[in-house]
Amino acid sequence: MDYMDQINIIKIGGNIIDDDDNLYHFLQNLSQLNQKFILVHGGGKIASDIGQRMGIEPKMIDGRRITDAETLKLVTMVYGGLINKKITALLQSFDVNAIGMTGADANIISAVKRPVRNEIDYGYAGDIKSVVGERLFSLLKIGLSPICAPLTHDGKGQLLNTNADTIASAIAISLAGLTDIKLIFCFELQGVLSDFENKSSVIPELDHQSYQDLKSSGNILKGMIPKLDNSFEALKAGVKKVIICHADDILKIINKGEKAGTTLKMNL
Amino acid sequence: MDYMDQINIIKIGGNIIDDDDNLYHFLQNLSQLNQKFILVHGGGKIASDIGQRMGIEPKMIDGRRITDAETLKLVTMVYGGLINKKITALLQSFDVNAIGMTGADANIISAVKRPVRNEIDYGYAGDIKSVVGERLFSLLKIGLSPICAPLTHDGKGQLLNTNADTIASAIAISLAGLTDIKLIFCFELQGVLSDFENKSSVIPELDHQSYQDLKSSGNILKGMIPKLDNSFEALKAGVKKVIICHADDILKIINKGEKAGTTLKMNL
Repeated sequence: MDYMDQINIIKIGGNIIDDDDNLYHFLQNLSQLNQKFILVHGGGKIASDIGQRMGIEPKMIDGRRITDAETLKLVTMVYGGLINKKITALLQSFDVNAIGMTGADANIISAVKRPVRNEIDYGYAGDIKSVVGERLFSLLKIGLSPICAPLTHDGKGQLLNTNADTIASAIAISLAGLTDIKLIFCFELQGVLSDFENKSSVIPELDHQSYQDLKSSGNILKGMIPKLDNSFEALKAGVKKVIICHADDILKIINKGEKAGTTLKMNL
Repeated sequence: MDYMDQINIIKIGGNIIDDDDNLYHFLQNLSQLNQKFILVHGGGKIASDIGQRMGIEPKMIDGRRITDAETLKLVTMVYGGLINKKITALLQSFDVNAIGMTGADANIISAVKRPVRNEIDYGYAGDIKSVVGERLFSLLKIGLSPICAPLTHDGKGQLLNTNADTIASAIAISLAGLTDIKLIFCFELQGVLSDFENKSSVIPELDHQSYQDLKSSGNILKGMIPKLDNSFEALKAGVKKVIICHADDILKIINKGEKAGTTLKMNL
């Protein structure tokens, strides 16, 4: 099988980024992968800590985070600089030829500033318009592993704060026409739970109908819903496999082809 | 002539970066170039401003800047994030397919932490060990314009603060074996002055011997010396041309092939 025949889009969040040991261990595992990958990282607590030191108050309207001009500056520094370059330098030390990117770099992800909805102005938040999968593919082909920060741009010089789960899903979709794509969301639990109060209630396989039932039952963690919506959208658009799993299971899933976490399917 | 037969390494510093209008105008000019380029940018006042807001005091020993752990964090955020991504997004708006990078990205620039000298520990300052010119060349070849922040890495996971003039010169040298390289330092003056108190005393051509004489005369700005030392080193190593000029002259020099600023030569 050609080395480019399998590409993994792997997303990590704050729970891995915020803990130096976790991050080191996870990146060391990544370096052992026997397939190509693109890593998408989220933000984490570091941005709030540095925002606090700079006197930037998190801005919320009706419980929603607003990216005002100061916050955009902060996340550009922290996501695009501090976190992205830390991950890149660490991966290089494990002999992975990582290249840190935002959506503006090589114009990989274009977005539009989110329009005002229900009178809420989200500020510099970006809704993805397009991902140039061919560009990411050509970087992988010359031996590079893109490391994507949760930032996009509008093509008119404006950077935009963008959800990392959505970026991972959009990247997976953009590559789905080119090769077999696995989209893997890593987080702190063992998978999607059928009862969010019972951490061992992992659902091994979840199809779209069961997901709808789970949602109606109210037994699903609220934070899981956008992740799962993104996942089913990716499957619908031709992504081969979507897995939601604990970060420690990455080698097992990719190198050994073993089951871990929750595998999503359109229909069982 | 093949489009890859001429590559320009262009360096800009704080005087362009710190002023939004200057930066916009300069990048707009860059987008008009009819030859490939790599842009290297320095830091500027923004880092000090944000450092102050974060309560990071600039650390000096014997008049030399020291990069302690906090300062490294600051410059990684500001140089690698804020400035680098701002330039990249602006260039994209001018249809230049820019890709922002530090030395860790794609492993382009390896360095060593500067050893303690005369009992001065410079902290996380990097002395360049090697530049992978072939990698930069391959990025240019697939249509990308690398935008390099003044940061390198040691290959062991450590980012290092590195002088932008030295990076520009080292990149130029790394590419000298592959094609014709022009190294252009842009700054706020019209060129190298024969009398630093007279801004119109621009030297059109400066060879190594005249530079030595100028240095002994004491008529040269102290800040120019490392720039000129880097320049002559680049010429010695096979870089075709080194020019020190005002940022506004970039189109004149590259597109029209006209003379502006100071052209350095090994021997006149």
